[in-house]
Amino acid sequence: MTQLPETIAQAASRIPAFDEVSAKSAADRQNQLTKPAGSLGELESLSIQLAGITGQAIPKVFKAHVLVFAGDHGVAAAHQVSAFPQEVTAQMVYNFAGGGAVINAITASVGAGLTVVDAGVASDLDPAIPVLHKKVGYGTKDWTVEPAMTVDETISALHVGYTTAASLLDGSLEHKYFVVLGEMGIGNTTSASALTAALLSKDPKEVVGRGTGVDDAGLQRKASTIRLGLARVTKDADPYSLLQEFGGFEIAAMVGAMFAVAARRCPIILDGVISAAAGLVAVGIEPKIRRYLIAGHQSTETAHGLQLEALQLKPVLTLGLRLGEASGGALALPILQAAAAVLRNVATFAEAGVSDKDAGQEQAK
Amino acid sequence: MTQLPETIAQAASRIPAFDEVSAKSAADRQNQLTKPAGSLGELESLSIQLAGITGQAIPKVFKAHVLVFAGDHGVAAAHQVSAFPQEVTAQMVYNFAGGGAVINAITASVGAGLTVVDAGVASDLDPAIPVLHKKVGYGTKDWTVEPAMTVDETISALHVGYTTAASLLDGSLEHKYFVVLGEMGIGNTTSASALTAALLSKDPKEVVGRGTGVDDAGLQRKASTIRLGLARVTKDADPYSLLQEFGGFEIAAMVGAMFAVAARRCPIILDGVISAAAGLVAVGIEPKIRRYLIAGHQSTETAHGLQLEALQLKPVLTLGLRLGEASGGALALPILQAAAAVLRNVATFAEAGVSDKDAGQEQAK
Repeated sequence: MTQLPETIAQAASRIPAFDEVSAKSAADRQNQLTKPAGSLGELESLSIQLAGITGQAIPKVFKAHVLVFAGDHGVAAAHQVSAFPQEVTAQMVYNFAGGGAVINAITASVGAGLTVVDAGVASDLDPAIPVLHKKVGYGTKDWTVEPAMTVDETISALHVGYTTAASLLDGSLEHKYFVVLGEMGIGNTTSASALTAALLSKDPKEVVGRGTGVDDAGLQRKASTIRLGLARVTKDADPYSLLQEFGGFEIAAMVGAMFAVAARRCPIILDGVISAAAGLVAVGIEPKIRRYLIAGHQSTETAHGLQLEALQLKPVLTLGLRLGEASGGALALPILQAAAAVLRNVATFAEAGVSDKDAGQEQAK
Repeated sequence: MTQLPETIAQAASRIPAFDEVSAKSAADRQNQLTKPAGSLGELESLSIQLAGITGQAIPKVFKAHVLVFAGDHGVAAAHQVSAFPQEVTAQMVYNFAGGGAVINAITASVGAGLTVVDAGVASDLDPAIPVLHKKVGYGTKDWTVEPAMTVDETISALHVGYTTAASLLDGSLEHKYFVVLGEMGIGNTTSASALTAALLSKDPKEVVGRGTGVDDAGLQRKASTIRLGLARVTKDADPYSLLQEFGGFEIAAMVGAMFAVAARRCPIILDGVISAAAGLVAVGIEPKIRRYLIAGHQSTETAHGLQLEALQLKPVLTLGLRLGEASGGALALPILQAAAAVLRNVATFAEAGVSDKDAGQEQAK
């Protein structure tokens, strides 16, 4: 495997294994709470996962924060794989900064913080707008002819995500955070699909979807573009190399952020097909990260089902979303907050003086 | 059809038809917001429904409130159809009042109000506990041998729900409310299943589930109990009569509440199989109510899928819940709030100066 940058390698070594003891304790507690055992379904599984991630048998109150990384893709400029022109990436960053995008409305509605990061938009942005200006380059290269990023760019983009997440979490050490990872980048479903095809050994046809809304011809174009890219890469390329080959700056930034978040025992909430591609890369580099991941929702993008299966994740929501910009991950936050709140605040049968199920069976005899 | 009580008949006549003009306007606006058209999936459909319900093309901020009605069932006392003893209904009301139940944790987590109503618990409750004391009777009769409620009791129970919801909404006229309806009543999945079988002409085997956790013998017992009940009732009984035959006080109260909420153009959020049975009755009496209903979640109870199909409702959440006490309806609230917030707060392409899809197609040519 290609050598990892020092920061990421050190973070990887600090990621604790999932805490099975705290998880078991949470599972036991769920069975004592005043409700039929198992009656909260996946809310119970989520609460148990949160205990294992944080190492807190009864997780304390979480803050919630959304990180949106923006970057452009050379492949989009060269191959018209998106229904939207490339300048929309920059325009949407201005929209985020002005508070007018969907993710602004959703984060405000669910009570989450929001940070937008220019990881590699293809044009100069006004330095006065309230985003983190951490541009690695003016969009990636066209990966049908050369690697999307140089080694140095890949390392820089990983650091953009790592340092952004680390600053957030280290700035409020008394709290655990739900960290939602999302992105903006015209053409990035194609890069994410290429990454997914390479990582999961799938045919391009199996992983392409309509993204923001391409037509049938666009779908064909996405598949043949990915085929060109895959032909350039050896079959046994490792996940880190594949990130360099096909990744966007925003995808690499999400990978870097995952190392920072997992090392601090916080849950990572994925959004759609782009963040899940980043998840596949991160888990490919460091398998311990998998148990820190939560799939916020199931996207309608074709590749997403394959990604979630490979990551063994069950989505919290299935609302037919396909927007990106962290929207589906952010929408899952109140469900995750409620899962933790149940474990923290519901009385046990003993505490509440409620007869449990055995009493019912007793009576039924 | 049996004569409806005056209050309910008057409310029925005041329920406005779903406002197709506002809904159309909301749908048009969704297509102008800065996101690919349709990319928010069911969040868009929900926002459009909210516009049609409220008659506001851009719905204003909603408050959220959960009403939990509690009542006991003669059939549970007589036929051991629940895994829990009947006294648990009262014990859980005390648990609600003390803040220790799941619905307390969830409403606090999602920022909703909570009112608990004794509609017909089988024992006297301490009058000092903070619930609405509106007991219609000490549990219903055993509906395998006689109607669950008398005509007078049915009317009283409808009024309990109607007046509770009307007081809530008329006490804050400047706001629309999301009103979540839920219940507590040991044995009430069996009554709800009997109602569902009668209303949808299903065999008892098709509508019984494990409720709070009965075993195989319990499942058999539920089916044969329902068979006894159905044998007592004529095939062409109307929904209002069937409510009297099989309903609980809490089920009739939910029906009454639906008339109050719909008449005030507020959305009604259903929880699981019990509230959906109430929904079937309400829609059976007054079909205009259907468009005011939102299914908070898909329960694991067998009958629930049939009910949602009959009501033409798609659940917001599918988390494997089977608790009741409004938990699944309350968990859907942040999604509904976000759906309205998107319509209200997201900028249009024109406002944000973002190129829309046509610009992309232009470029791709």
